Amino acid sequence: MNHSVDTSPPHLIRQRIRSGDFSDVTSGVAPGYVQCNLVIVPADCAADFMSFCQRNPKPCPLLAMSPEPGDPTLPDLGVDIDVRTDAPLYRRWENGCATATPTNLMDAWQDDHVAFALGCSFSFEEALLAAGIEIRNITEGVNVPMYRTDIPCQPAGAFAGNMVVSMRPMIPKDAIRAIQICSRFPSVHGAPIHFGAPEAIGISNLDTPDFGARVTVHPEEVPVFWACGVTPQMALEQAKLPLAFTHYPGYMLITDTRNAELAVL
Amino acid sequence: MNHSVDTSPPHLIRQRIRSGDFSDVTSGVAPGYVQCNLVIVPADCAADFMSFCQRNPKPCPLLAMSPEPGDPTLPDLGVDIDVRTDAPLYRRWENGCATATPTNLMDAWQDDHVAFALGCSFSFEEALLAAGIEIRNITEGVNVPMYRTDIPCQPAGAFAGNMVVSMRPMIPKDAIRAIQICSRFPSVHGAPIHFGAPEAIGISNLDTPDFGARVTVHPEEVPVFWACGVTPQMALEQAKLPLAFTHYPGYMLITDTRNAELAVL
Repeated sequence: MNHSVDTSPPHLIRQRIRSGDFSDVTSGVAPGYVQCNLVIVPADCAADFMSFCQRNPKPCPLLAMSPEPGDPTLPDLGVDIDVRTDAPLYRRWENGCATATPTNLMDAWQDDHVAFALGCSFSFEEALLAAGIEIRNITEGVNVPMYRTDIPCQPAGAFAGNMVVSMRPMIPKDAIRAIQICSRFPSVHGAPIHFGAPEAIGISNLDTPDFGARVTVHPEEVPVFWACGVTPQMALEQAKLPLAFTHYPGYMLITDTRNAELAVL
Repeated sequence: MNHSVDTSPPHLIRQRIRSGDFSDVTSGVAPGYVQCNLVIVPADCAADFMSFCQRNPKPCPLLAMSPEPGDPTLPDLGVDIDVRTDAPLYRRWENGCATATPTNLMDAWQDDHVAFALGCSFSFEEALLAAGIEIRNITEGVNVPMYRTDIPCQPAGAFAGNMVVSMRPMIPKDAIRAIQICSRFPSVHGAPIHFGAPEAIGISNLDTPDFGARVTVHPEEVPVFWACGVTPQMALEQAKLPLAFTHYPGYMLITDTRNAELAVL
């Protein structure tokens, strides 16, 4: 089955993911529905992580969190969501290092775990495509290129670090339209944070992204940079928690919320 | 009296202009109120000019027009407005050439004249300043630099020509914010139409504007380009009407409409 055209409703996709029948990246899956970044930390630093999101809303737009510690559901985003099983792939973090890539967290989940679901660029990419704007990483069939910047996040407790950005090249006219469209979606990173000179935000070479893959940038285009949901993973590196989990980049949690519901205008 | 801090209400400023007591540029005068570009053409080509505005809304955002040919009032924009006297300086156009700069049109006004009032960048400059964004031409105390581009307007009857743009240099972060703010004001040129490479829109040298004055562009800044209300004057050059009038650039018609009323969001 071709995952990229799987247009089943979200709860059916989640059932397939939960049963191990779907284990691929979720780009293009369940079109129209919000996909989320996941961050799971112990309850004793949940308030700090929530504060980190609140202070850094562009890279860390918080859509929902566990109703209480140990509860693996996210009722605000879907009636049957189980954060232990519903992302196709996870990352285990120990003392700030990614140490494993489990396909579920059934054994690892703890009574004191709190899950955070953050907005994801898939939502605004869909809005841009609908407006006829080309998304180069989609055209070229690769993960979006992502870069560490020298833009510091506002720290909260042990959580700190620099912002990670994703980059999509566009002609200026499309970039202006993209700024307008993305401004309608603050909960999925909102408007770009920069365009043009990469070195102005501490990026030395566009051809060597820190995450994801290189994409072509044509001479008439400018790189346009959005705050990226990988940023909290940098904060986990800094926080060096004994144990934490995230989704694996690109393998997102698919929700029942429609992208269109997130538009503020 | 220092005109730049004249905060009298619009109708008092218009009285002073009408009586010859005020004859300067109107930048900064009557803050908070909409100022307009004026175009006055004979009734037999008024429909074509209206069509030109309709087809080119970014350079020619039509705010109001004469209730009927020969009527010098603009009741939609102010109860006592007289387009023959209420701009501090005018331009007379004969066969496509600017031939004179009268201070009023009392003798020149004809029974078949129709006046058009178009939005002006002063309105969005005020919104940008309120957001803490520097406007270089204001900082440097000069008229905004304007350039002929190679972007063709949609023609209507005899009216045609390329778009004129104004340019304000900004760091990318401010340019993104400016795009958001100006998108709220489509009736005063709206969002920029381009940023970055001037040659992409047919501008060979930023240091030699076609109208207005050169401004400093710092290395970390990009030039940001807005459609400009001087564009219809290019269309008058092309149309070669026997007789037409406009305001003189910078010497605008001050209305009773507040800038804030123009915001669509």
